[in-house]
Amino acid sequence: MNSYKSVNKNDIEFLLSVCGSNRVFVGDKISEDFSHDELGGISKMPEVLVEVLSTEEVAKIVSYAYENNIVVVPRGSGTGLVGASVAVHGGIMINLSKMNNILEIDEDNLTLTVEPGVLLMDIGNFVQEHDLFYPPDPGEKTATIGGNINTNAGGMRAVKYGVTRDYVRGLELVLPTGEVIEVGGKIVKNSSGYSIKDLICGSEGTLAIVTKAILKLLPLPKKTISLLIPFDNLSKAIGTVPKIIKSKSIPTSIEFMERDVILASEEFLGKKFPDSSANAYLLLSFDGNDIESIEKEYENVANIVLKEGAIDIFIADTDERKEAIWSARGAFLESIKASTTEMDECDVCVPRNKVAEFINYTYELQEKFNIRIKNFGHAGDGNLHVYVLRDELNQEMWDKKLAEVFECMYKKARELKGQVSGEHGIGFAKKKYLNDQIGEVNSLLIKNIKHAFDPKNILNPGKICS
Amino acid sequence: MNSYKSVNKNDIEFLLSVCGSNRVFVGDKISEDFSHDELGGISKMPEVLVEVLSTEEVAKIVSYAYENNIVVVPRGSGTGLVGASVAVHGGIMINLSKMNNILEIDEDNLTLTVEPGVLLMDIGNFVQEHDLFYPPDPGEKTATIGGNINTNAGGMRAVKYGVTRDYVRGLELVLPTGEVIEVGGKIVKNSSGYSIKDLICGSEGTLAIVTKAILKLLPLPKKTISLLIPFDNLSKAIGTVPKIIKSKSIPTSIEFMERDVILASEEFLGKKFPDSSANAYLLLSFDGNDIESIEKEYENVANIVLKEGAIDIFIADTDERKEAIWSARGAFLESIKASTTEMDECDVCVPRNKVAEFINYTYELQEKFNIRIKNFGHAGDGNLHVYVLRDELNQEMWDKKLAEVFECMYKKARELKGQVSGEHGIGFAKKKYLNDQIGEVNSLLIKNIKHAFDPKNILNPGKICS
Repeated sequence: MNSYKSVNKNDIEFLLSVCGSNRVFVGDKISEDFSHDELGGISKMPEVLVEVLSTEEVAKIVSYAYENNIVVVPRGSGTGLVGASVAVHGGIMINLSKMNNILEIDEDNLTLTVEPGVLLMDIGNFVQEHDLFYPPDPGEKTATIGGNINTNAGGMRAVKYGVTRDYVRGLELVLPTGEVIEVGGKIVKNSSGYSIKDLICGSEGTLAIVTKAILKLLPLPKKTISLLIPFDNLSKAIGTVPKIIKSKSIPTSIEFMERDVILASEEFLGKKFPDSSANAYLLLSFDGNDIESIEKEYENVANIVLKEGAIDIFIADTDERKEAIWSARGAFLESIKASTTEMDECDVCVPRNKVAEFINYTYELQEKFNIRIKNFGHAGDGNLHVYVLRDELNQEMWDKKLAEVFECMYKKARELKGQVSGEHGIGFAKKKYLNDQIGEVNSLLIKNIKHAFDPKNILNPGKICS
Repeated sequence: MNSYKSVNKNDIEFLLSVCGSNRVFVGDKISEDFSHDELGGISKMPEVLVEVLSTEEVAKIVSYAYENNIVVVPRGSGTGLVGASVAVHGGIMINLSKMNNILEIDEDNLTLTVEPGVLLMDIGNFVQEHDLFYPPDPGEKTATIGGNINTNAGGMRAVKYGVTRDYVRGLELVLPTGEVIEVGGKIVKNSSGYSIKDLICGSEGTLAIVTKAILKLLPLPKKTISLLIPFDNLSKAIGTVPKIIKSKSIPTSIEFMERDVILASEEFLGKKFPDSSANAYLLLSFDGNDIESIEKEYENVANIVLKEGAIDIFIADTDERKEAIWSARGAFLESIKASTTEMDECDVCVPRNKVAEFINYTYELQEKFNIRIKNFGHAGDGNLHVYVLRDELNQEMWDKKLAEVFECMYKKARELKGQVSGEHGIGFAKKKYLNDQIGEVNSLLIKNIKHAFDPKNILNPGKICS
């Protein structure tokens, strides 16, 4: 058990000397927002909140905290879902969201250099103006890139383009000792010692603070098309996915959705979805540089899904239609949240051909535990987003049922050779399930790696492992 | 300084009890091949060589070695170039090359599960029969996949498809303690604790022994085309590469070569290259599913290179022509080697738009030190293969000149914000240069990570860090 030093007057003096009085917040000057993330189940106020503007400031603060044995918690937009950016042990919260400059676009090397607080949507818009493309596309566009790197965020285009890690070429890091290092660079290949860059991706702010990132870009595909495909039921819809993959077509994304999630989103947005008559849908997108080859590709897929029992195929090739569909898709999380009193989520990733089995199992759980469970997610990459809804349950029943349902779901994921989290991370909330999944040897290894970076365990303690 | 236990009679007895007498070799029963790798500068015989056939055998041996403080060195085909698979501290060498079964192809999930001793060329052929594609394409096709994973091998298609790490989905590992863990799986996304999988890729057998790998496959592109493009000089050739990239065309590969390397390869293979009249060449390839879109792409590139001063463009669209070009390309290393008495190599990776500057610098060094230096490599991804040739130099002069030339080259790579190794690794031979590059803080971190996995430092010691 670590015993950390509490933040006192002298510490505040030090922080003021680094950041000035406009960027250091104590007590009720700290907005309540900083006590939790997007899902809200885990809540604790930091002892002090500082807004940083440079790597030097971060290094000074962390170095001071290391010497004085004070907890440091890095924070971006706070859009996480597992409590990774909550100061569960108090201490100094470092808000990186004002380090939000796009530093350089390098068209010779196809890289973008950014500070960690740049928002995902700002990256997308900026590179698009240069006819370039940053493929990772998580639903939450107001997340910071620093947060995306720290959860190794995936998003909808992972089927074709992979995840955040695949687009991180280099990082500047402040280590838990306050020392600054650079790893990787504007280079395509690297076999120069252990890949610290890849270890940082997905480390949820526990190994180092990312203060700069060099991202890989691609040429912007000139055309995209989406297909909305209604089915009688979700099993049938999802059962077609391995057949699509097996046919050697790789769509950009393959999302699945059920009617009641669509209805919730229509209500939430006050906008009609193009079709909501069927029980279940697949939403596919394709991209490329000429319309003929995209057409060839999606015709192949259209034949497969019709053969497998699709009711119809709606083609969205105009901006308006695409917007209608994808804005609804983007609002699923918020609209489910708005439909209940509280919820928690499970973000398992299973092999692509096990998605249907997992979802059917959530139906069984819904019956067995008499609790609402909503699904949507990435059928093409096996990453599910399963939401368990509290509705009118009292605290005791909610805690009990949620724990039981989660226990069942994570056990099922293990049986299917899946992993605890596809893209949301482990944070504080999923530690038990990670531990159950990976076992003692692997858990100890994770602890040893943490210790290799952070011998005093001051950086975002209590997350992933503890 | 570690002091390891030497292998004695009891230890041999133990190994015999695990592997039987046909697979344990001692003294002059060990082929001299196992004392060095492909480049030969580093040489040392293991005390005992064992040929393993299963994870269980590996685990038993490593566990025993851990208890008894005996060095273990994993070995594949021995095609490395930096001494990573040489038993510089003696001990037990574990030859994994007979663990060479392809275990499963899963077309639903587009994965291939293999043992570590499967050769790269066997993977290529096997998946092609299923109309699938394993993109990493290092020149050395007789390397094992275990070796490729451990150097994070890149190869020629990295421009478009990335490197080995990008195609490793899951691993089974024997840790230095002899414990067995699995990381990753047949899953597309993973954010479940630190990515040990990604740390193992490129760790050169120092953190764990890979005993199984799940690889990601892609649909096999239906068409490929190569363009051989002659230029007056190499600077002009390489100078066009950032312009090609900037034009939003991403060829599958962009290789560069000079006339004298081509002539050496013609002599070595006894086969004519399609053209050897120009001083320098770019070799580009494109792939895709329909010929029209490939043509569109390469016409764009053809216009750029002609505008930038290319002398001509030879299109290789038949198997024979492609074979003539790519077999020559595959023989560059061997033919340079055959042209001299001894050589050493530098495998730096620099930003794509710094390749020309680096190569021009090697010309300067050639003059300054009066020593032959040959270049070829991956212009599209900035990864150079620079060979310094001994020719008739005596040992003392060779050692001196080689050290001086290397010192200059690695310093230049640092200035250009490159890295020590793009794909060959650090092994034993390049430790000094890695250390110079990354500095004390990062070096210490690498040592700490090594210690987190291998507290007794028994697994492949003296490599990467020491």
